[in-house]
Amino acid sequence: MRDNGRSNDKIRDIRIEKSFLRYPEGSVLVEMGATKVICGVSVEEKVPQFLKNSGKGWLTAEYSMLPRSTHTRSVREAVTGRVGGRTHEIQRLIGRALRAVVNLDIISERTIWVDCDVIQADGGTRTASITGGYVALVEALWNMKKRGMIEKIPLRDSVAAVSVGIVNGQVVTDLSYEEDSRAEVDMNFVMTGRGLLIEVQGTAEKTPFTKEQFDLMYQYAYKGIGEITRIQKIALGSHFPV
Amino acid sequence: MRDNGRSNDKIRDIRIEKSFLRYPEGSVLVEMGATKVICGVSVEEKVPQFLKNSGKGWLTAEYSMLPRSTHTRSVREAVTGRVGGRTHEIQRLIGRALRAVVNLDIISERTIWVDCDVIQADGGTRTASITGGYVALVEALWNMKKRGMIEKIPLRDSVAAVSVGIVNGQVVTDLSYEEDSRAEVDMNFVMTGRGLLIEVQGTAEKTPFTKEQFDLMYQYAYKGIGEITRIQKIALGSHFPV
Amino acid sequence: MRDNGRSNDKIRDIRIEKSFLRYPEGSVLVEMGATKVICGVSVEEKVPQFLKNSGKGWLTAEYSMLPRSTHTRSVREAVTGRVGGRTHEIQRLIGRALRAVVNLDIISERTIWVDCDVIQADGGTRTASITGGYVALVEALWNMKKRGMIEKIPLRDSVAAVSVGIVNGQVVTDLSYEEDSRAEVDMNFVMTGRGLLIEVQGTAEKTPFTKEQFDLMYQYAYKGIGEITRIQKIALGSHFPV
Amino acid sequence: MRDNGRSNDKIRDIRIEKSFLRYPEGSVLVEMGATKVICGVSVEEKVPQFLKNSGKGWLTAEYSMLPRSTHTRSVREAVTGRVGGRTHEIQRLIGRALRAVVNLDIISERTIWVDCDVIQADGGTRTASITGGYVALVEALWNMKKRGMIEKIPLRDSVAAVSVGIVNGQVVTDLSYEEDSRAEVDMNFVMTGRGLLIEVQGTAEKTPFTKEQFDLMYQYAYKGIGEITRIQKIALGSHFPV
Amino acid sequence: MRDNGRSNDKIRDIRIEKSFLRYPEGSVLVEMGATKVICGVSVEEKVPQFLKNSGKGWLTAEYSMLPRSTHTRSVREAVTGRVGGRTHEIQRLIGRALRAVVNLDIISERTIWVDCDVIQADGGTRTASITGGYVALVEALWNMKKRGMIEKIPLRDSVAAVSVGIVNGQVVTDLSYEEDSRAEVDMNFVMTGRGLLIEVQGTAEKTPFTKEQFDLMYQYAYKGIGEITRIQKIALGSHFPV
Amino acid sequence: MRDNGRSNDKIRDIRIEKSFLRYPEGSVLVEMGATKVICGVSVEEKVPQFLKNSGKGWLTAEYSMLPRSTHTRSVREAVTGRVGGRTHEIQRLIGRALRAVVNLDIISERTIWVDCDVIQADGGTRTASITGGYVALVEALWNMKKRGMIEKIPLRDSVAAVSVGIVNGQVVTDLSYEEDSRAEVDMNFVMTGRGLLIEVQGTAEKTPFTKEQFDLMYQYAYKGIGEITRIQKIALGSHFPV
Repeated sequence: MRDNGRSNDKIRDIRIEKSFLRYPEGSVLVEMGATKVICGVSVEEKVPQFLKNSGKGWLTAEYSMLPRSTHTRSVREAVTGRVGGRTHEIQRLIGRALRAVVNLDIISERTIWVDCDVIQADGGTRTASITGGYVALVEALWNMKKRGMIEKIPLRDSVAAVSVGIVNGQVVTDLSYEEDSRAEVDMNFVMTGRGLLIEVQGTAEKTPFTKEQFDLMYQYAYKGIGEITRIQKIALGSHFPV
Repeated sequence: MRDNGRSNDKIRDIRIEKSFLRYPEGSVLVEMGATKVICGVSVEEKVPQFLKNSGKGWLTAEYSMLPRSTHTRSVREAVTGRVGGRTHEIQRLIGRALRAVVNLDIISERTIWVDCDVIQADGGTRTASITGGYVALVEALWNMKKRGMIEKIPLRDSVAAVSVGIVNGQVVTDLSYEEDSRAEVDMNFVMTGRGLLIEVQGTAEKTPFTKEQFDLMYQYAYKGIGEITRIQKIALGSHFPV
Repeated sequence: MRDNGRSNDKIRDIRIEKSFLRYPEGSVLVEMGATKVICGVSVEEKVPQFLKNSGKGWLTAEYSMLPRSTHTRSVREAVTGRVGGRTHEIQRLIGRALRAVVNLDIISERTIWVDCDVIQADGGTRTASITGGYVALVEALWNMKKRGMIEKIPLRDSVAAVSVGIVNGQVVTDLSYEEDSRAEVDMNFVMTGRGLLIEVQGTAEKTPFTKEQFDLMYQYAYKGIGEITRIQKIALGSHFPV
Repeated sequence: MRDNGRSNDKIRDIRIEKSFLRYPEGSVLVEMGATKVICGVSVEEKVPQFLKNSGKGWLTAEYSMLPRSTHTRSVREAVTGRVGGRTHEIQRLIGRALRAVVNLDIISERTIWVDCDVIQADGGTRTASITGGYVALVEALWNMKKRGMIEKIPLRDSVAAVSVGIVNGQVVTDLSYEEDSRAEVDMNFVMTGRGLLIEVQGTAEKTPFTKEQFDLMYQYAYKGIGEITRIQKIALGSHFPV
Repeated sequence: MRDNGRSNDKIRDIRIEKSFLRYPEGSVLVEMGATKVICGVSVEEKVPQFLKNSGKGWLTAEYSMLPRSTHTRSVREAVTGRVGGRTHEIQRLIGRALRAVVNLDIISERTIWVDCDVIQADGGTRTASITGGYVALVEALWNMKKRGMIEKIPLRDSVAAVSVGIVNGQVVTDLSYEEDSRAEVDMNFVMTGRGLLIEVQGTAEKTPFTKEQFDLMYQYAYKGIGEITRIQKIALGSHFPV
Repeated sequence: MRDNGRSNDKIRDIRIEKSFLRYPEGSVLVEMGATKVICGVSVEEKVPQFLKNSGKGWLTAEYSMLPRSTHTRSVREAVTGRVGGRTHEIQRLIGRALRAVVNLDIISERTIWVDCDVIQADGGTRTASITGGYVALVEALWNMKKRGMIEKIPLRDSVAAVSVGIVNGQVVTDLSYEEDSRAEVDMNFVMTGRGLLIEVQGTAEKTPFTKEQFDLMYQYAYKGIGEITRIQKIALGSHFPV
């Protein structure tokens, strides 16, 4: 049993509130335990330079934390004038994860922006952003279809993410901030609803780990993502891709 | 009667949810019609250079909008690398408004940060930030007292704000985004709970106005701020300064 | 009587030197007591993005201070790499004030730049910039007419500005730096030559003020702006708009 | 057989030239096929803010590419004024990988900088940076010992890295730029000389992959890193940690 | 005879107005023909990092142009967020030139800032900045002496500068903007009042030049700087160093 | 005899390795004693704004140092977010020097980028950059001719550079870092293969110098550049312009 009373392979309660904001094409408030992220999806009628005249679209993500989403206040990146390394790393991950299931070739020369703004951070903000960002993305795509911008929903599969790690030598799922801060290994899995891998990213700053430990982490992640996918399915109802 | 069914001197429904976030010393979600702002107050154990060794504290505000809090997506200031002119203007206003009622001489060398993050913008985000920021500030001050950081609540008065303007030649209160975008005159009043003026800021980009029109705007603002103060009082209960 | 020997409602000596620089379309050196500002007006054959293909023009202002225009040297904004909050606030004010009297719809897709560079600062630099910027603007418009760029002078009225404030509980006009630094209330009025209001911006960081005090400040500002308008009229002669 | 004549699990020729530069405490030129990286290690007598007065040291890495290390010229990050997302991601990876095998608690309050500058890029620049960075780091540590700055070499293990991926449905090791640009899955493994995992980072932007494919990639990486470790051992001779 | 009626070795009229601004320790308005530069000298009670605890002082210069000091308006460097290459080059030149005649070892740990702001630019702004900056510097040093900050005037010699060049194959002195823009060779000489060289900087972007041409340029510069030194001497009177 | 055993007018050994990198149109590794610079030349199919639709091409240079090319590590300019003054000064010099011998009117609307990256710095990095940059440029031009981009090699002459200076009152050539750091006068000469002057840039921060000393420095530079030109000729063989 963990300090927070969860068994090692148990994820926290998830809550996904669709249509959370008035203006974006799709938006959700996703909560994973005490972690809360607002995901807003916007559609822009242009693409980055490298796709001009290709007929293809693009999807990109941006991630930010409210200055006091954490225990101590952080300086805003708008004030430092730079997007920091951690932010870059996370928003690149979110973008890659979502692009993996969207067929961008059939949305015309448009950019889909997925904005993930962390309101409260208790570990797992990047995985919650992917999980929630996916639901907001589907909402946006159905809106695009309704407005006649696209003919069919360009999704190949669903996508969700979870963190796993090794804490005190034990493999555990969906780490809280407190667990994360003393973990030996910290890993994030992104998988499709069908159970295939999209992204694996794990680091052992303190203690290197074995292939057997990796395999157990994979197993826990597989189980956790299965549960998260079920919640996404409930949130999206008939809009969930077959 | 206005398009939105309000009489000219009627403000929108206000809602103030205290203790909205887990980590800040004080926090609220303030809603003024469809406008929603999260205000988080943080206390830092140091002061800006110009107050070092003065024994006095400081209060400063920062303001930001989620990229899709508005009809169309805006580029994040962290991405442009610069805090824009409008943001500077607004956060300086919020800071001045709140400093006017706090006795910073008796909070020791600490900085109180008031972060106002706009989740959804339908006009009046700067006045909602002042109104909500004040409540979050009081919450933070009581927390500081509880932790023994200060001996008494260093407040001279309460503070609230409202926008007024001239639309189609009519003076109206608490403009929505739609009204604001076609207003001839756009004015913001900040007043104390006792009805004194702290800040007046009004602009006529289209049609100059008379002193008589100003006086009517003042009257409407006085009435509106009275109502807003009542809601602040309800939210804060016995913590509202006498 | 004030320390500087002026009565409470008396402005300082104003001096406006037209055609101060060789290259700008219009330029003045404006002095308000010891405050000196160079205003240069430039006409550029393009407009900001939001006006492209609208057939309309734009006017914008920039404000800067020489590093040693003040008692102690300030770091240049080119060196910090950022335009500061105070600068943003001031240049936005100057731009709004001047746009209020120009009919930008009939100058074609051009941008009028009003550069206000403070050479020496003894209080009231933003109001001096508006007062002098207006004269330089008129000079530039007549030059545009002479060169056949516009058919008529697109001015609806003249514009001037003055600061007023409360110092030691007394309402006073046109504060020097020394008065400004110990004022309880600091207010700026921008009015047209016909006596209508364009902008009111007042702050009480120290002591909130009453509507009666506001009314007296308005009265002093009205008187002061009347005198400043007279000096503008002399400087511009027959070029002053009827 | 691959286009370049290598079997799927075969890495390119590696060359590690120690003491490549005159001034750094440690430096190498590492070549992995046509990829060439200069790694320079510098020791600085101070630590970041969060380690002040902790008695502990720090290690951090920076990564950059010459503008024409690639097929087309890239704009320098010094010119854009920002370190880009990819650079951030890579230099954070290098830093984490090297910190995993160094005992920073016993090097006193010093920062070890590992600069990886890519002279020529033909795929695998981040893994070559880790492999070469490790050798330069060991050289620097021995220099520190020689100068009496540390008493013993604070290394727990050696570290090396290799890229693997899926190209045309085939798992392959140590991808060239040409292979990388058309890979379905792109993965980087960082492992210790003893064969434990330090970092796994894999992405499937095009086609999700199975656990079985992951296991094969792991197997190839294990083999490749074994060979690379052998070359590091030769380069370092008796300085290689037991 | 040149277009502007000057003989090839004739400089333009110089005018140096001392004590031009109220606040700086020293200040001049220097005019060289239509070129006008304000030089303000400030003394700061600290030195750059590399001189801390050395007991020695420093002198540095900054240079800027008003946006419309030239024929067409330039974007402010505060707006681009970067000090440009030309500005860097010029302000480094001014700093070196003035440091060459000041004994900074005896002014204690202070920084002397020489701000050169070009009001109007008709060629030769960098040489006018040196010529005028020197006079403002002397004024500041005498003020420092008067206030007891230094015991003696720490000057080894005077310094002045002039531009020379080759236009239409002819060597000419003190080029106007119009001449400068079509010059084959553009050279700046900085010399002491005693006629020694401090800086030579010449460029032939169009046509390489011979040593004989260089020698003639030197001769013209020597003569021009002699005349400029005479004007500095008149401006400074008994404050001119022997 | 100097400390390093060279006579006063003797340059260090030069080594120029052509085709040093795989991707640039032209590239060299140039060594001048222990100073090592990689010069890479890239051709881009567009020109800066001011040359659009002129039919003419442009050449520009960029200069950078590896952080540990020097005795102590410098912060990367990508990290500070600014290109420093010294870098600006040097890269502007390199650009001017090379443009002086290329006929850019006949290369069509293309930009030639000359990147000079210092790997190891022992004095004279800017002159080595010009010397090596020239060879890389010629290589790139011949490549352009081979690819049919230009009809003839647009070179008027060759170009090379050397530093001279006054150390301990003695005129010396090609200063090492150690000599440079204690030089009274530091000068750089850029000359054509035919012996004409392109750029002269000399500074006396410590002791002003006489025309006679200048003449001796010129003489030494003339001799040194003659020798360097001979090495360039050997490196380029028949590609050296007649």
